[in-house]
Amino acid sequence: MSADTLTLAQTLIGRRSLTPNDDGCQEILISRLKQIGFNIESMRYGEVDNVWARRGDVQPVVCFAGHTDVVPTGPLTQWESDPFIPTVRDNKLYGRGAADMKSSLAAFVTAIEHFVSTHPNHKGSIALLITSDEEGVAVEGTVKVVEVLKARRELIDYCIVGEPTCTNKLGDTIKNGRRGSLSGNLIIKGIQGHIAYPHLAKNPIHLAAPAIAELARTEWDQGNEYFPPTTWHISNFHGGTGATNVIPGEVSLLFNFRFSTASTVESLKQRVHEILDRHGLTYELIWELSGKPYLTQKGKLADALSAAIKSVTAIEPELSTTGGTSDGRFIADICPQVVEFGPRNATIHKLNEYVEIEDIERLSEIYRLTLERLLK
Amino acid sequence: MSADTLTLAQTLIGRRSLTPNDDGCQEILISRLKQIGFNIESMRYGEVDNVWARRGDVQPVVCFAGHTDVVPTGPLTQWESDPFIPTVRDNKLYGRGAADMKSSLAAFVTAIEHFVSTHPNHKGSIALLITSDEEGVAVEGTVKVVEVLKARRELIDYCIVGEPTCTNKLGDTIKNGRRGSLSGNLIIKGIQGHIAYPHLAKNPIHLAAPAIAELARTEWDQGNEYFPPTTWHISNFHGGTGATNVIPGEVSLLFNFRFSTASTVESLKQRVHEILDRHGLTYELIWELSGKPYLTQKGKLADALSAAIKSVTAIEPELSTTGGTSDGRFIADICPQVVEFGPRNATIHKLNEYVEIEDIERLSEIYRLTLERLLK
Repeated sequence: MSADTLTLAQTLIGRRSLTPNDDGCQEILISRLKQIGFNIESMRYGEVDNVWARRGDVQPVVCFAGHTDVVPTGPLTQWESDPFIPTVRDNKLYGRGAADMKSSLAAFVTAIEHFVSTHPNHKGSIALLITSDEEGVAVEGTVKVVEVLKARRELIDYCIVGEPTCTNKLGDTIKNGRRGSLSGNLIIKGIQGHIAYPHLAKNPIHLAAPAIAELARTEWDQGNEYFPPTTWHISNFHGGTGATNVIPGEVSLLFNFRFSTASTVESLKQRVHEILDRHGLTYELIWELSGKPYLTQKGKLADALSAAIKSVTAIEPELSTTGGTSDGRFIADICPQVVEFGPRNATIHKLNEYVEIEDIERLSEIYRLTLERLLK
Repeated sequence: MSADTLTLAQTLIGRRSLTPNDDGCQEILISRLKQIGFNIESMRYGEVDNVWARRGDVQPVVCFAGHTDVVPTGPLTQWESDPFIPTVRDNKLYGRGAADMKSSLAAFVTAIEHFVSTHPNHKGSIALLITSDEEGVAVEGTVKVVEVLKARRELIDYCIVGEPTCTNKLGDTIKNGRRGSLSGNLIIKGIQGHIAYPHLAKNPIHLAAPAIAELARTEWDQGNEYFPPTTWHISNFHGGTGATNVIPGEVSLLFNFRFSTASTVESLKQRVHEILDRHGLTYELIWELSGKPYLTQKGKLADALSAAIKSVTAIEPELSTTGGTSDGRFIADICPQVVEFGPRNATIHKLNEYVEIEDIERLSEIYRLTLERLLK
């Protein structure tokens, strides 16, 4: 049954599911899952389609999570084939979403179909949590489904998110956590004045510079076994009236921490305030926690997935926590073990996105063997 | 004859000479000057009216310089009387240009009339250099007339610019120079990247901060007898794509020196480059010299003007070089002694601009007594 993973991936790529539009992708998955005894709950919030599908009503619950939406194509003239017409060329399947993450979705379905056909009375439950808003603002997607599940105390034991995690070869990387993301919107105050009379003004750019220099060179932590060190960066810095003879009254800047579990939200906030205060600045600072960090230590899920990967690819995968945020941060709220595993991410969000044909069926086989280890 | 200075000032204020529109002011001055033997050269460049008027053809040349244009009124509802209807109230003459600088223009004319009537065969020459573009971009005004005079080697020996220089009382301040203004348009380069992968980017805001901190705390010079220390300020600093997850590729900033004669343009440039280079920055820097400094040391003109002020007001004027730039910087190119003297500047460019009535005639008397000392 897994032999049709390529076909299903092609069908999904044919749908123009630009975030947050699902464009019928979930119906295709649902019709397959219904045939093998899944209970389906569609949850639409705003423009976002989500589906929670489950087979079985006992623990442990093994969940596959992912998204049907894709990022915009970029200039069509720079694609060698239409991004929404799946095209096989040089043993690769081209199309928007080929790697991120329609091949993973297809592999989920065929892996489950194969597993269920050989183990119709498997223990535990199998579930899928699919959204059409992972690439967008991600406020009506996975986070909402997790809220529903949490409210009714429906917990997940193991979750595999199908994000493209591999770097050079299929099997080289499992993400077992993600750093947190903490943002600050900072306004540093001065006193506006004429540049010819600077003694009557206070230049907020000059006041800010030494504090920024110190923040930029601060070592926030050294990371830990799973996480690289926390980083702090300013993304935007704006001060000035446009006039060349006016010292501005304030500057505004946006900064962002990507932080490891070696620091806490509170410790980072406190240290920033300490530096700003020590430099004698007058400021307003609004914090926004856009993603808590999550971490799944080595354990039953990572072991099962690693073993499956090794048996299919002969590669020992590395556990990694690098990269941006993912929906794993939301699922971690109701699931103690969340990992991410999918195809190579070399072409995601780029022109001429592709996945290696042979990786599509191998991915399905990895997911199936993981189920074998967890639910047989 | 000087008794009609108030009347002439009122007539000039009645003209809506919003920069660079002269609105007939110069014609009023010219008709008076022609009657006392002045040779008139009108020079119109673009929308700007200028006049060079001269009585006599030998050295020394004593020149009065000024402008007929005024700045915009601001909200009319906040004026207590129409800014273009000269209005006497509480011993003050209200109207746009009352202080900056139509009372000075009127005083120039009546002072000269009075002087010429008593010394029809005065030694040297008397001149006026009047423009309608001092408050605006100032590129078709005094600077152009000076170019013409310079080209034909017509030099000025002493020049009094009628700008409002006094602070608390008429007579308290002569400006005997102005600082220079040197601007820089600086772009500091980094490498754009995703904020989650900062090791692949170079944040130009972080790179710039220590250099800016050093530039801001640098002592450029200590000034000298006539000038306050040179100042350096950033007026505008912009970096960032707007996106909160992108480290920008570059930042741009505008800075400005107001510099004394204790530094030179070249020394300031060299020191900025040294600091930027030492911080290892990759940058582009475009310099613009918007005004050279000028300085008239104590000497015949300052002495004559100071003595005239003291005899009219009983005040010993202070020589000062503070404030923004003025047309004095252009005239200094063809005149070794340039000073500025005019009424109080407390209300210039503001709502309800005024000049004290008694100061109008006293100003004329000061200009007349200065002529007495230089050309009798």
